Amino acid sequence: MSPNNDITTSSLQNIDNNGPLLSLRWAEDRLFLLDQRLLPEHIEFLELTTPEEIWDAIASMKVRGAPAIGISAAYGVVLAARIYDGEPSGWLAHVTKAAEYLATSRPTAVNLFWALNRMKDRAALLAEEQPEIETRNLGLMAEAVLIHQEDEEVCRLIGEHALPLFESGMGVLTHCNAGGLATAKYGTALAPFYLAKERGIPLKVFADETRPVLQGARLTAFELQQAGIDVTLLTDNMAAVVMSKGWIQAVIVGTDRVAANGDVANKIGTYGVAVLAKAHGIPFYVASPLSTIDLSTATGQDIPIEERPESEITESFGKRTAPVGVKVFNPAFDVTPHEYVTAIITEKGIVRPPFNTNLPALFDK
Amino acid sequence: MSPNNDITTSSLQNIDNNGPLLSLRWAEDRLFLLDQRLLPEHIEFLELTTPEEIWDAIASMKVRGAPAIGISAAYGVVLAARIYDGEPSGWLAHVTKAAEYLATSRPTAVNLFWALNRMKDRAALLAEEQPEIETRNLGLMAEAVLIHQEDEEVCRLIGEHALPLFESGMGVLTHCNAGGLATAKYGTALAPFYLAKERGIPLKVFADETRPVLQGARLTAFELQQAGIDVTLLTDNMAAVVMSKGWIQAVIVGTDRVAANGDVANKIGTYGVAVLAKAHGIPFYVASPLSTIDLSTATGQDIPIEERPESEITESFGKRTAPVGVKVFNPAFDVTPHEYVTAIITEKGIVRPPFNTNLPALFDK
Repeated sequence: MSPNNDITTSSLQNIDNNGPLLSLRWAEDRLFLLDQRLLPEHIEFLELTTPEEIWDAIASMKVRGAPAIGISAAYGVVLAARIYDGEPSGWLAHVTKAAEYLATSRPTAVNLFWALNRMKDRAALLAEEQPEIETRNLGLMAEAVLIHQEDEEVCRLIGEHALPLFESGMGVLTHCNAGGLATAKYGTALAPFYLAKERGIPLKVFADETRPVLQGARLTAFELQQAGIDVTLLTDNMAAVVMSKGWIQAVIVGTDRVAANGDVANKIGTYGVAVLAKAHGIPFYVASPLSTIDLSTATGQDIPIEERPESEITESFGKRTAPVGVKVFNPAFDVTPHEYVTAIITEKGIVRPPFNTNLPALFDK
Repeated sequence: MSPNNDITTSSLQNIDNNGPLLSLRWAEDRLFLLDQRLLPEHIEFLELTTPEEIWDAIASMKVRGAPAIGISAAYGVVLAARIYDGEPSGWLAHVTKAAEYLATSRPTAVNLFWALNRMKDRAALLAEEQPEIETRNLGLMAEAVLIHQEDEEVCRLIGEHALPLFESGMGVLTHCNAGGLATAKYGTALAPFYLAKERGIPLKVFADETRPVLQGARLTAFELQQAGIDVTLLTDNMAAVVMSKGWIQAVIVGTDRVAANGDVANKIGTYGVAVLAKAHGIPFYVASPLSTIDLSTATGQDIPIEERPESEITESFGKRTAPVGVKVFNPAFDVTPHEYVTAIITEKGIVRPPFNTNLPALFDK
């Protein structure tokens, strides 16, 4: 951990300090969550004990990244179940209502709904099979822990599948943060960089800072630097010139939702990077767990795009950077049409076009 | 003037408050310069009385915009001449040395060298024709005032030539600030917007915020809002998605130097916008005074590109937004190859490809 970062909370003592910085840790009756809004200046963990606190942490982007949002929401259901003090007959309705409430925290990332549906399915089964509320609650906790653990394994596998795409010495551009901080561990888009580092394969990573909330500068540059990986920070508008200089041989990004036709929703700016990559003849890869691929969403046009407050653009850095009252457009995500996507890398392997047939085939594997 | 802006300096009383906010005003023995680093929060004028202060104002971007830099440097030569207290025989060497010193303040904008060369030529003529130092100094001042006045007329003419390119209701994207704040008045790229406003032609302007120093957010959005022009602020990485939505029918930007083959140096991010415009079938226009076209620079590869401090990216918002010690790439400008340029709009009219023959022809007009 960098000596430049203040350790500002006592709860950090509960966290294993020898491994990489983990964004999430469950401890019996509470979720310890790294407050990503404060990085890289402060490493501070929140202790969340209610579903309302989880909802707020997701909505206010204290936790972000599609997989990490899904895991947090799953633990939110566990916390909601523990609060229930009625008859066993009302338990399932209570848990389902909590899951539906948590689903309203953010609209775009499909992992949120995927994890909550999985928790609801598990709750329905538990309500059927287990008469005791305490047993049901333990069953829900086990399911959330499983979602959490599986994510780490999924990310590792994505890294394994992606790694052969990169050769020693390549320059690779990434946008936003699809790293360890966005997931249980390793990340999706950043997973191959961690594996390359472990295996002594040098890569040069270029990280877009990713306005407005700067997850590239604050999170990607931070976590790669901590891991000793060669990373250079750029403002978003420098990606094109860096490509034209021949410094970039591949782009890899994460995603919040992949539609059935291969259209990819991801952090605002991803579409522009994809267009620039195509114009420069650079492959554009998307790292995505199966849980982020939503075959029930036909195309990118069907993905709801969250718009966020104007203040993220006009005064998000502690000082006003635009005139009062100016009109602002602030979509949090954009959709990259599948024509721009060279391949999607999942835990089950690499999927190439045509996505509308190859994505469903993946689920049947 | 917006009630939201503090008027923080007494020198503002010297400024005509009824017209648009002017970035530069010469008053006998000093240059009043709007400190553009403080906008839009504070409207504060600096009073500069020495060439060193002018040098610093240019280097630290208190004044920016290719034409405004040229005008400021010309007044810097006037201030240097006034300080001279030697024999008439040493005057020209003193003035020439001052001009050469001022030329080191920034490397990319050719107007700086153009204005200083014009002042040196004038000084040489004055030294030959006028025995009295005082007369020579008055002659230099007249030349600087002329450069200043001509810029206003040049910008108005650029606006007149550009205006027919835009139809009522069009969406037009601009990057950085090539507005009234970058010039004597009207601006280059923004000049047609001011004229459209005067003539009741509604346009919808989209302004990229233009990281790292946010001239789009702080200056373009500010000056267009002050003028009552419909402007929407975007982060740079939103330009692509706004184009894909069909909201943009044209792009217009300013420039710091146009090479003989039509390659265009401008604020970092311009090249990316040009590539995106081409991918979306949107014309890409460059507004440029003749003084910004440098036929002695063969291609964009010959234009020196200034790199600026890392801190502009890592901590320019009053708080740290990237980890300490991270590697940063921070070029202030990029070069857009002429293939991406639909037309260059000058005070003498619109120039279309092939630029390598049509640009020299313009100077012979």
